[in-house]
Amino acid sequence: MAIVTLTTDFGWRDNFVGVMKGVILARCPQARLVDLAHDLPAHDVAQAAFSLWSAWPFFPEGTVHLAVVDPGVGGQRAVLAVRAAGRYFVAPDNGLLSYVLDDCPDFEARRIEHADLRFETVSHTFHGRDVMAPAAARLAAGFAFDQVGPGIQEPVRLPLLKARAGPDAIQGRVVYVDRFGNLITNIDANDLAGWDPDQLTLEIGDLIVRGLSAAYASAEPGRLLALGGSQGLIEIARNQGRAEDPPRLTVGTTVVIRRQGP
Amino acid sequence: MAIVTLTTDFGWRDNFVGVMKGVILARCPQARLVDLAHDLPAHDVAQAAFSLWSAWPFFPEGTVHLAVVDPGVGGQRAVLAVRAAGRYFVAPDNGLLSYVLDDCPDFEARRIEHADLRFETVSHTFHGRDVMAPAAARLAAGFAFDQVGPGIQEPVRLPLLKARAGPDAIQGRVVYVDRFGNLITNIDANDLAGWDPDQLTLEIGDLIVRGLSAAYASAEPGRLLALGGSQGLIEIARNQGRAEDPPRLTVGTTVVIRRQGP
Amino acid sequence: MAIVTLTTDFGWRDNFVGVMKGVILARCPQARLVDLAHDLPAHDVAQAAFSLWSAWPFFPEGTVHLAVVDPGVGGQRAVLAVRAAGRYFVAPDNGLLSYVLDDCPDFEARRIEHADLRFETVSHTFHGRDVMAPAAARLAAGFAFDQVGPGIQEPVRLPLLKARAGPDAIQGRVVYVDRFGNLITNIDANDLAGWDPDQLTLEIGDLIVRGLSAAYASAEPGRLLALGGSQGLIEIARNQGRAEDPPRLTVGTTVVIRRQGP
Repeated sequence: MAIVTLTTDFGWRDNFVGVMKGVILARCPQARLVDLAHDLPAHDVAQAAFSLWSAWPFFPEGTVHLAVVDPGVGGQRAVLAVRAAGRYFVAPDNGLLSYVLDDCPDFEARRIEHADLRFETVSHTFHGRDVMAPAAARLAAGFAFDQVGPGIQEPVRLPLLKARAGPDAIQGRVVYVDRFGNLITNIDANDLAGWDPDQLTLEIGDLIVRGLSAAYASAEPGRLLALGGSQGLIEIARNQGRAEDPPRLTVGTTVVIRRQGP
Repeated sequence: MAIVTLTTDFGWRDNFVGVMKGVILARCPQARLVDLAHDLPAHDVAQAAFSLWSAWPFFPEGTVHLAVVDPGVGGQRAVLAVRAAGRYFVAPDNGLLSYVLDDCPDFEARRIEHADLRFETVSHTFHGRDVMAPAAARLAAGFAFDQVGPGIQEPVRLPLLKARAGPDAIQGRVVYVDRFGNLITNIDANDLAGWDPDQLTLEIGDLIVRGLSAAYASAEPGRLLALGGSQGLIEIARNQGRAEDPPRLTVGTTVVIRRQGP
Repeated sequence: MAIVTLTTDFGWRDNFVGVMKGVILARCPQARLVDLAHDLPAHDVAQAAFSLWSAWPFFPEGTVHLAVVDPGVGGQRAVLAVRAAGRYFVAPDNGLLSYVLDDCPDFEARRIEHADLRFETVSHTFHGRDVMAPAAARLAAGFAFDQVGPGIQEPVRLPLLKARAGPDAIQGRVVYVDRFGNLITNIDANDLAGWDPDQLTLEIGDLIVRGLSAAYASAEPGRLLALGGSQGLIEIARNQGRAEDPPRLTVGTTVVIRRQGP
C-alpha cells in the first residue's frame, strides 16, 4: 500500500483534484488516494501549511503528502520533494511545508527536476498536474529519493507556527478558524501545563475569557470558552455557537493568556 | 474488501475527514473508504440520521458505516457500535442511528470501551478521530463485535421517521431538503398505494398540490408537483426550479395528503 | 484495476454520490473510484461536458467515466454507454458527452437496456443510482460492450466546443469560470501559434487585453491578462485576483482575439 494524500485550494467545482488523481493512478495504480482538504482559502499558503501540519502525523510511515496551494505557479519558485519522519512531502517551495519542517528538523529537501517526475511539456498554470502529481506518484511507487533532483538547504519558511511562552504570559494569535467557527490559536496547550486552569485569563480582541474549560459543553450555551483542542493548541469556542461571531475575531487576531488575572 | 463509509458535518475546508481516514488506514490498510455526506448542517443530528438511513441499504453486507455529527463531544454521551442487517454502524449515542434502528429491530448495540478501539489519550473535542475512527477500522479488520464493550439496551432514539397513515389522510412533515431544493417528506409512498393518484391532494404551508406526478418533467416548468422519490418517500419538487423557494417551506413544515380533495 | 470516475451536480451535502459508489462497489468490488467534480452548477449540462472533456485524457485506457447531470430524468431521454479512445463513458443522452465525442469521432454509442445494467425497479428521479451506476460498474467489471443495448447513431450533441479561427481574428466565448475566477474560453491556443503574442489583442466585454502572457505572474497584481491555460485554451486571468470581477464577465461572454491591434 502507498497512501497519497492531497491538500489543495481547488474545491470540488472544478476537476483539478480529479485530474491530479488520474495522473497519479496512471503512474502508480496501487496508490491509495486520500483527500485531506480542498476548500482551503484560495492562495492562502499559511492556512494550507497549518492544515497539513495538523494531519500528517495521523498517517503511517511511507505516506506521500501532496499539497498544492501555488499562487506563484509559472514563476521562479521551485517545486520541492521532502523526506521527513519517514514520510514524503511534495509541494511548491513557498512555505507550505514550513510547519512540518518546524517539527522535523532532520528533513531532507530536493528540487524536483528528474525528467521522470514531470510531464514532457509543463504548462504555465497547473504544476499540480504536470509536476507535483507525477512526482508524488513516482515516490509512492518507490522512486529513489536521492534521484529527485539537487538538494535544497533552505526551503522557504514561514515564521514559526508556535508562540513563545513566557513565565507568566503567552502572546499568540489565531492561526485557523474551523468549520464550526472555533478559533485555533498558535499557543501550545502544553505550555500551560503548570498553570492553574481556573486562574488564567485569555484576552482576545476586547473580550476576556476566564479559566480553561475541559470541553465545549463546559460553558453555558452561547458563552465563549477556551480549551485545549484536538491539535494540542489552545482554541476559543462558543458552546453551541461560533466563536468567530462577531467576525472581528479571525485569523491574525492577537490572543494573550496570562497566568493570573490582570 | 472492507468498505468503511463516512458521514459527517465536517465539510471539506478542514482536514477532519482526511485525518479520520489516516487513522482508519493505519489500522485497516485494506479498508475501502467511501464518503457519504460531509456538508451536512453543523450539529444537525436528525438530518445526518436521515442521510445515513437513505444510504446504507445500497452497500453490501459487512460494510462499516461511521457517522460523526457530535455536538455533545466531551460530555457524557456514549459512543456506540451497532450490528444490524449484517452491517456495522459507529456513531455517538445521540440519535444519529435512530432511523437505521427503526428499520432493523434486531440490532445489537454496544458501548465502545475496549482499549484497542480508541486512542490511548482521547481528546475532549474530536472523538471522531480518537474513538470512532479506530473502532470503525478495527471492526472493518475483523474485531469481534462482542468484545467492543457492554451492551446498550436503549440507544438514544429520535421520534420515528415515518408518518403514520390514516385511512383517508396522512399528516407528515418535511424531513430533508436536497441540493436541488426538493422537499423530502416522511410520508411513505407505499402508504398511498391504493389511493387514486389523480384524486389526492397535498397541502404544504398555504399551498395545495393536486395529484401525484410520475416524474419531475410531468408538471409545467415552474409548477410545484408531488411524486414518489428515490428513497420511497413522497417529495415535493418544482420542475426546473426549487420547491423550497419561497424558503418558508423547509425542514419541519407540515405536509398533509388527503385521499380526496377537501 | 478498473478506475471509475464520477462527475455530477450532486454536491457533498446529500448522499447521492456516496449511494452511487455503494451501488458500484456492490457490483465491482475492485473498482477504483475517483471524484472528478461534484459541485457543478445544478442542471448545467454544458459545464459538465466541459469538465469531463478536460479531464478524461489524463486517465488510463480502460477507465469508465460516469457523468450524471440529468435535468430530464424520468422523461424520454435515453441513457448512453459510449466506447471511445479505449475508455467507456456512461451518461444521459443530453449532450453531456458532446465534447468528448467531438475529439473522438470513432466512438461507438449504445442505449443502456440490458437487464443486468439496471435495477429491477427503476425510480423516476434517480437514474444515476438505478441505471448509470450499475452500468458503469458492470462495464468496469468486464461486461461486453456490444451487449449493452441497441446502437445509437446520433447521440444528442451540443454545438462544437471550439471556436473557428479566421486568418486574422477568432471570435469565441467564455465557456467556463474556474474556482479562482479565471475565464476559460473556447479558443484553442494552438490556433494562435503563428501570431506574434506581443501584437495580438483580446477583447472581452468593453475591456481590451494587449498581448499574451506566459504566466499569471507576468502581469502586475490586479491587472487582467490573457494566456494559454492548462487545457490548451486561451484563458483570461487577473494576477492575484479574479478575472470575473466585475461579474459581468462570465460564461457566454463574447471574446475576440485579433492578430494585430485595431
